[in-house]
Amino acid sequence: MTRRHMHLVAFLKTGPTFHHHGAWRHPEAPLNDMLRPERYEHIGRVLEEGFFDACFFEDLSGVYDIHGGTFETMLGRGGQLNLLDPLMVLPYVARATTHLGIGITLSTTFYHPFHLARMLASLDHLTGGRVAWNVVTSITDLEARNFGLPKMPDRETRYERAEESVDACMALWDSWQDGALILDKEAGRFADPSKVRYADYRGKHVASRGPLPTPRSPQGHPVIMQAGQSPSGRALAARVAEVIFTFQYDTKAMIGFRADMHERMRAIGRDPAHCAILPCLDIILGETESMAREKQELLDSLLDPELAMAITSCHLSVDLSRFDPDTPVQDIASLSAFQGAIDIMTQGAAAKGGMTLRDAAMRYGTSVMAPQVVGTASSVADRLQEMFEAGACDGFILTPTTFPGNFEQISRSLVPELQRRDLYRTAYTGRTLRENLRG
Amino acid sequence: MTRRHMHLVAFLKTGPTFHHHGAWRHPEAPLNDMLRPERYEHIGRVLEEGFFDACFFEDLSGVYDIHGGTFETMLGRGGQLNLLDPLMVLPYVARATTHLGIGITLSTTFYHPFHLARMLASLDHLTGGRVAWNVVTSITDLEARNFGLPKMPDRETRYERAEESVDACMALWDSWQDGALILDKEAGRFADPSKVRYADYRGKHVASRGPLPTPRSPQGHPVIMQAGQSPSGRALAARVAEVIFTFQYDTKAMIGFRADMHERMRAIGRDPAHCAILPCLDIILGETESMAREKQELLDSLLDPELAMAITSCHLSVDLSRFDPDTPVQDIASLSAFQGAIDIMTQGAAAKGGMTLRDAAMRYGTSVMAPQVVGTASSVADRLQEMFEAGACDGFILTPTTFPGNFEQISRSLVPELQRRDLYRTAYTGRTLRENLRG
Repeated sequence: MTRRHMHLVAFLKTGPTFHHHGAWRHPEAPLNDMLRPERYEHIGRVLEEGFFDACFFEDLSGVYDIHGGTFETMLGRGGQLNLLDPLMVLPYVARATTHLGIGITLSTTFYHPFHLARMLASLDHLTGGRVAWNVVTSITDLEARNFGLPKMPDRETRYERAEESVDACMALWDSWQDGALILDKEAGRFADPSKVRYADYRGKHVASRGPLPTPRSPQGHPVIMQAGQSPSGRALAARVAEVIFTFQYDTKAMIGFRADMHERMRAIGRDPAHCAILPCLDIILGETESMAREKQELLDSLLDPELAMAITSCHLSVDLSRFDPDTPVQDIASLSAFQGAIDIMTQGAAAKGGMTLRDAAMRYGTSVMAPQVVGTASSVADRLQEMFEAGACDGFILTPTTFPGNFEQISRSLVPELQRRDLYRTAYTGRTLRENLRG
Repeated sequence: MTRRHMHLVAFLKTGPTFHHHGAWRHPEAPLNDMLRPERYEHIGRVLEEGFFDACFFEDLSGVYDIHGGTFETMLGRGGQLNLLDPLMVLPYVARATTHLGIGITLSTTFYHPFHLARMLASLDHLTGGRVAWNVVTSITDLEARNFGLPKMPDRETRYERAEESVDACMALWDSWQDGALILDKEAGRFADPSKVRYADYRGKHVASRGPLPTPRSPQGHPVIMQAGQSPSGRALAARVAEVIFTFQYDTKAMIGFRADMHERMRAIGRDPAHCAILPCLDIILGETESMAREKQELLDSLLDPELAMAITSCHLSVDLSRFDPDTPVQDIASLSAFQGAIDIMTQGAAAKGGMTLRDAAMRYGTSVMAPQVVGTASSVADRLQEMFEAGACDGFILTPTTFPGNFEQISRSLVPELQRRDLYRTAYTGRTLRENLRG
């Protein structure tokens, strides 16, 4: 019997900062390539050398201006930004790779399902079946205003629309059967119209008739990712997600989350084996333990405290510039409407026996409160193995702590260590991303 | 003094048929690569060898089902289809080329300006300043239904929204000044927030606050293409277009159109030299005149009459299956709401002293009634030179009559002939598409 293998997915953004808000100031961080294809092509190749299942691009439809009511800190000091539309970057990564899955965050709040279904099916063809869609609802009013709305619809409405958007896309993707293209020049028969039908999807928030102009793609539909933490988010993920991207403060919280998700899946008759639950981790690797620790200290010393406070404001959607930094973080988290950020701060405060806003922000500015695993390839592999074997997860979403160096180190030293332990693939065995995720 | 040079732009689609509805059945037409990157990368390289200013992808947000109220003929017999979303194809073409402009048709009716501005600015960065946007309004109710609307808004509303969408995009593109990125690691200064501002665009149909997350791109904004033929379309083109894509039946009609557009531009204080007016042409090349004629006959023999009738139905948005094929085409054209199709059919009927629906459809099925220029490189160059020197145009939009063979022939034999006559560039001289268009 083959041993269960862990899955690795890389978290990417098209800007200076992934999670660690000091990392762009690291001496080896290239900055001039941020708007060029080479940066993204290189990282695709590095991840494929490390047999990652996929990379995926996180996104926001705007520039955060929550902290102090301005984008001054986030933009001026290099916070989480998305300088390029990931949609336009994806094909470049895809073309530089052969097996790597290519995932993208696309909001159901502002994209119509017809656009979503068409773009994703087209890319699934062009990549030979390697596309994943991270289904999100937009949350911030700043995004609403970019699309001409005064504020965001409430959570229930947003999730209703997200559920409908996924269903509408599925109906559009199913509007072509396999084998509809005939391509018979002599007979003049290009396609078999009896294998194409209208989607005729009609929901409360979105509707689309179809058919899609795009034939059925190699995966039929892209791999669905979801990251919801609220009850509505978990319900959506239980129903449709094949990869769940989650932030949990520690192994205990991961185990609890996974158990809850498995229960939700079983309750609706879904096999939990068809969904990879991947908590987010930050890894800092060194050739020795002390080098790893020193690298962590260096990175942390580059974190601007005001920027740390700003990203915390943005993720909570609460302007923290109005608060005393000595306020207990629990008092502030309760003001937020963002379940994921509230949960992880509450977990963190509980684990530490209380945390001030200042402490929470510094922790948030380094890893968005995901666990940091610091050490050599061997000791980091020990930690990952522990979590994996404790049933905390099916693998991990890894955020680069330095870019691209961290992923280069992971592919070159951590991956071989995991392979030696038979915890990780030594070759891609599937033809598509979905096959690799289930392999 | 240097002689005025003509500009060439290639018309592309992501399906079997460009204009000639028999061409996909040509013995040398590859069909299996239609969903693969290689097809689009190859043609990009071929066009760049021929020093084309740009290629651009025509598009429709749906599958035509106007003829007989079904998509059976268009899909079954290989009509104008868009199997892949051109947005996803563009980066592939861009990566395979260095100088070629990359244009895309994106509808202002269904894309929000925030998405449009962000995608196009991102691609302009990734291509180093080679992007063009063909600004269209969607027309057919089948597209409306794909986006959940029962029918299309009226022309006035659509053009108002198009005008606003361009203005909103311009405001978003102007939300970053040049040189806003500082990238100073030591000082921790990533960007200068004083060089970024809210767009604050508020129209009757669309609004967006911004700022765009994307820094100002190499071209500032993409080259704007427009193809409107109605008074509203011409007004928009006169105001914003840097390339006008037009269908005119013959040289006389081209001259009339260009004079009208120049007058409209001068009336609002725009220099007509800043806009290239490019009528659409189909070229059939042979090593000898008789080989060219025989190729044309072969292609025309592959045209399915029912498919010819179907594309005519679709472009007029009138179901012609209900009409006697002997009806004079003018009687039918007047039922359409599509100015471009009506005009060219009326011009054609007048030039021929009358035309039946059957004759018009066969002509429409071969070249959508754009002029066909058939001959050797030398005789075709004569015809192009005549039109160009008569003031009919600033160059041409060329539709491939066979694919990719026709563009290969044009790059290898017609382009050198035009270069010998000093009618065409022998190298790209600009850094961006806009610079090449003005060179």
